[in-house]
Amino acid sequence: MTTKTDVLIIGAGPVGLFAVFELGLLDLKCHLIDILDRPGGQCAELYPEKPIYDIPAWPEISAQGLVDKLMEQIAPFAPQFTYSRMVTGLERLPDGGFRVTTDENELFEAKVVVIAAGGGSFQPKRPPIPGIEAFERESVFYSVRRMEEFRGHDLLIVGGGDSALDWTLNLQPIARKVTLVHRRPEFRAAPDSVNKMFALQEEGKLEFEIGQVKELKGEGGALSGAVIKGPEGDKEIACTRMLPFFGLTMKLGPIAEWGLNLHENLIPVDTEKFETSEPGIFAVGDINWYPGKLKLILSGFHEVALMAQAAKRICNPGERIVFQYTTSSTSLQKKLGVA
Amino acid sequence: MTTKTDVLIIGAGPVGLFAVFELGLLDLKCHLIDILDRPGGQCAELYPEKPIYDIPAWPEISAQGLVDKLMEQIAPFAPQFTYSRMVTGLERLPDGGFRVTTDENELFEAKVVVIAAGGGSFQPKRPPIPGIEAFERESVFYSVRRMEEFRGHDLLIVGGGDSALDWTLNLQPIARKVTLVHRRPEFRAAPDSVNKMFALQEEGKLEFEIGQVKELKGEGGALSGAVIKGPEGDKEIACTRMLPFFGLTMKLGPIAEWGLNLHENLIPVDTEKFETSEPGIFAVGDINWYPGKLKLILSGFHEVALMAQAAKRICNPGERIVFQYTTSSTSLQKKLGVA
Repeated sequence: MTTKTDVLIIGAGPVGLFAVFELGLLDLKCHLIDILDRPGGQCAELYPEKPIYDIPAWPEISAQGLVDKLMEQIAPFAPQFTYSRMVTGLERLPDGGFRVTTDENELFEAKVVVIAAGGGSFQPKRPPIPGIEAFERESVFYSVRRMEEFRGHDLLIVGGGDSALDWTLNLQPIARKVTLVHRRPEFRAAPDSVNKMFALQEEGKLEFEIGQVKELKGEGGALSGAVIKGPEGDKEIACTRMLPFFGLTMKLGPIAEWGLNLHENLIPVDTEKFETSEPGIFAVGDINWYPGKLKLILSGFHEVALMAQAAKRICNPGERIVFQYTTSSTSLQKKLGVA
Repeated sequence: MTTKTDVLIIGAGPVGLFAVFELGLLDLKCHLIDILDRPGGQCAELYPEKPIYDIPAWPEISAQGLVDKLMEQIAPFAPQFTYSRMVTGLERLPDGGFRVTTDENELFEAKVVVIAAGGGSFQPKRPPIPGIEAFERESVFYSVRRMEEFRGHDLLIVGGGDSALDWTLNLQPIARKVTLVHRRPEFRAAPDSVNKMFALQEEGKLEFEIGQVKELKGEGGALSGAVIKGPEGDKEIACTRMLPFFGLTMKLGPIAEWGLNLHENLIPVDTEKFETSEPGIFAVGDINWYPGKLKLILSGFHEVALMAQAAKRICNPGERIVFQYTTSSTSLQKKLGVA
């Protein structure tokens, strides 16, 4: 099944979100794909509670508060979201539009593609265990896309942050056995989750081991056990699935392979339309580059406004674009649901 | 006396105000001059109560609300304001800075000049009275800069909006006599002001005449009377000062005479620094032009951020500029008074 849309936006950070608003004012429908499981990009993932002081007319707003306000602002345009997916493929169709594929083999077709991918894809950090690559995507996973895939397994979860603790608690009821491994008894995760985990441990419903995974056992990608180096020496734990949560790192990812001109992992664009070297593919926000570029959210807001005019011309060629203001145009106010 | 500042900003609309923020983060001090008697430009003058829907992360904000938020945001940088003045002269000093003069002959010196003048200067509309020009600046004034100048005069105030009514009420105690003339008994001004005016009329403390001024009497700029064409014919009223309030119109004004390249009454700039054809003079917001330009407030916010980097290099040549984020930089947070 192919999902069709006017504009496919790669990245649902603040700039990708505001693109929906500017494109929506011009009657273009948007679908956003993001590697994270919710909107907001870095703002939501890295520093949701931190105050930002340089969003114009917001003397102070938390990063998550900014994302919430943008989601409210674009709601009238009913954007579609596909979360927890990496865009892997981007190819031009004979009609001039684009086909976009994800790492779960979903297909999208759009007339215009907007890359609003910030610093690139958030990708899980690989723990330093020799030979771990051979088990990845077979027995070792860095995220949980469908909980059912872990039902009945002997599960090894590694880490001390919110992801490790949350998935320990969420998967404990459906796994056959859960062992949490962390290098020390203190956790960065929310105290409430930590308390719940220790309570389950006391009830004998899960194991908690202090230590670090030093070796994986198994054949042909099928995990059978892991050697934990702990304060009292090595210990082998039987397991068939492992979920290491060692944080995220930012990588440009597959964007590098789409044939776009790149400049030090950034995508050069013009300052009239913010279009890349490929007509119909635009790049906005932290991922683009032009003379004077500053990686500021407020610059991304400007970039999407100008990009939207160019996207409109591609999606509706020949149609006259009347530039209107939300303050005075009843037509725009109707789209926003306020007139 | 000459007022010295790092950056002189012409225009205190939303974009001029936010320029203070971006320049302030780089330790540059700003002085703003505006033709209006308060901050906000068009937002405050033309549509203060109208909602705006396209300020990013503000699903809805009134124009005055936007101005208020920006004033709050720039308060830590203590900008200086000179209101009710038109910048008339701009000349380069031998040291590379600029001397700026106003229509009240104030002098300013700045290292950098930022033109954030929107559609230009708001200028009062001249009523269609033959020969009125001869009385202007002598007996006929379009704004009140110092109330004392009207003390003891026989005053004719013309108009039906807030300005006409407010000045009728404010000048009544100090004028010898006040006559308000409006073409009909209904007013656009706030009902409370209208009620107060009628109350003073009943007490015999001012006159109200329905009609239109068709002729002015006097010699050498000194007004002695005005002929009012009313519903019952013409009537001459003795007066020595007249204040017509017929609304404002927008004109480019003296900016056209500063030797800048112009393009259809707009100032072309580059998109790296938003600098005009004259080094050290920048133009931001609705008054500038570049390929793709949209007259959006959010574009002005972006423009001032990039302009500020260039202004810093002019004001502090050779100093290394470290690009920092308000979210993570304690140094910036100290400037903002939050760390």
